[in-house]
Amino acid sequence: MLDSDPQPKSSPEAHPTSVIALTGGVGGAKLAFGLHRIVAPGEFMAICNTGDDFYHLGLEISPDIDTVLYTLSGLADPSRGWGRRDETWNFMAALKEIGGHTWFQLGDQDLATHIERTKRLAEGETLSTVTDYFRRQLGIATRIVPMSDDPVRTRLRTTMGWIDFQDYFVRQNCAPMVKEITFDNVEAAHIAPAILPALNNPDLQAVVICPSNPLISVEPILAVPGMRKALRSCTAPVIGVSPIINGQAVRGPTAKLMEELGFKSSASAVAQRYTDVIDIWVVDESDANTCVPTGVEKVVTKTLMTTTKDREKLAQNVLAAVQ
Amino acid sequence: MLDSDPQPKSSPEAHPTSVIALTGGVGGAKLAFGLHRIVAPGEFMAICNTGDDFYHLGLEISPDIDTVLYTLSGLADPSRGWGRRDETWNFMAALKEIGGHTWFQLGDQDLATHIERTKRLAEGETLSTVTDYFRRQLGIATRIVPMSDDPVRTRLRTTMGWIDFQDYFVRQNCAPMVKEITFDNVEAAHIAPAILPALNNPDLQAVVICPSNPLISVEPILAVPGMRKALRSCTAPVIGVSPIINGQAVRGPTAKLMEELGFKSSASAVAQRYTDVIDIWVVDESDANTCVPTGVEKVVTKTLMTTTKDREKLAQNVLAAVQ
Repeated sequence: MLDSDPQPKSSPEAHPTSVIALTGGVGGAKLAFGLHRIVAPGEFMAICNTGDDFYHLGLEISPDIDTVLYTLSGLADPSRGWGRRDETWNFMAALKEIGGHTWFQLGDQDLATHIERTKRLAEGETLSTVTDYFRRQLGIATRIVPMSDDPVRTRLRTTMGWIDFQDYFVRQNCAPMVKEITFDNVEAAHIAPAILPALNNPDLQAVVICPSNPLISVEPILAVPGMRKALRSCTAPVIGVSPIINGQAVRGPTAKLMEELGFKSSASAVAQRYTDVIDIWVVDESDANTCVPTGVEKVVTKTLMTTTKDREKLAQNVLAAVQ
Repeated sequence: MLDSDPQPKSSPEAHPTSVIALTGGVGGAKLAFGLHRIVAPGEFMAICNTGDDFYHLGLEISPDIDTVLYTLSGLADPSRGWGRRDETWNFMAALKEIGGHTWFQLGDQDLATHIERTKRLAEGETLSTVTDYFRRQLGIATRIVPMSDDPVRTRLRTTMGWIDFQDYFVRQNCAPMVKEITFDNVEAAHIAPAILPALNNPDLQAVVICPSNPLISVEPILAVPGMRKALRSCTAPVIGVSPIINGQAVRGPTAKLMEELGFKSSASAVAQRYTDVIDIWVVDESDANTCVPTGVEKVVTKTLMTTTKDREKLAQNVLAAVQ
């Protein structure tokens, strides 16, 4: 930092990014939280999936960004896996009373995020700008960045026809059988402006692919044009962390989805999907025998994250794998 | 009702309107509540001021309509004068946390009304349709109708320049000195579709102008093109109820506003503003000596409404004045 730099020493912007993570919601956010805790303040950047974003009740909702915002600020509900702690549901009860759609739960506090985001986007701000504003307001030194400022929407072709992601995931509780996944508008999407400079930063130490659902959380990010190429050409090693433990998905629809689409739900099958971008593949001790693609280094550790200590420990082990 | 009418006997639509009221928020809604209680179910229609409506945080907010909806459904807060009873404010607290505008209080339950209204208007419904949907959902037999489906916005020229109504009323707590009031877009506004048929109904018994602020609650309604003419030509008597008690406004900025605009805050001065439309002017016992315009009949009664009984009693006295 130059002496003439007007920013205070504690400003996160004074630091170059040393670690980047690609993450979806719940599972990925746990490791993002661990990295946030152990990387020097302001040197960590979380790139979030926005394929799950949707427009509902007139509101622009970004579930994965919000999960990361809430998790990193300590506002996340510790048991539910989404939304805010100490949440109340009086809005939902009143909405039900007047006949509104109540299949997607919106807590009273959580609503503030959606209303303020919708207002700012309508005023012409980008999703990057709004997200950066929120993380500053919540006192988060880590930069939180959407994969793109352009709308990309995950849709699924099922036995019931094409349906939007949240319709499938929440309203129908993943019940319809999935035949195909698509990321609408992804061809036209641009990588969010903060991402390429961070990936090209020579001080970058590691890029982590969090243990999120590969099909619906990580692949929308990788599908943004130029993203795979940027990861391949980045000088820092790319470390994928398997979302599979003992041959099974920890939670969520990963296993069911992979099976329906003809993939084996295994640490090895997930690694195959990232072959061109990862240098290291981190698997759980229970999957120690996993085959990894040629040229990819396998690291075996404990990947289940239950406590904050688990998250920090996995983050440490992931970063240690780089050395 | 014809025998072949498919509607159940209890349907409010089976009844012709026998009483209509023009009302603003708090003060007017009290008398509207009294009328709602004593008029046969489904035979009362409340026409609401929408000059106070505004767009805030991306939401379409109709304060007077909502006060009437909440008051007639029993959901209104009994002491505050606006919003819902047993309200919570967790949205506002979270909005403050992320740096949003918090000068206009929006309760968690109240938000449901604004979000659902905004959604339905964006989908192409009219304010009349949305309001009618809400009153049905809340089990209100009384029809609640906006003065117009077209946006009319009360604005005030003050010592600080032109400001929007809610900015003046809530944000600045009526502090700026007012020099002029205007109802933006009123020339282009059309009377809401349910109003003229109700006013022209030969079974109509009475039209009541509630004791709302004349300048900012009643006059926006009267300013909609054709409204004064429709009231003058309506066969039922038009009964105005004075918002003044003992030479003073009961609450709100009526007195200050009238004084700043050069009018005397008296029952007589208010009556002058309605001269062309009213047949009867109801004043409080404390204003028994009020002069009324030629051709207008004066009725003296107790007009302060504290309890539900007061509201019903005044409603009874107002309708008795017609006989």
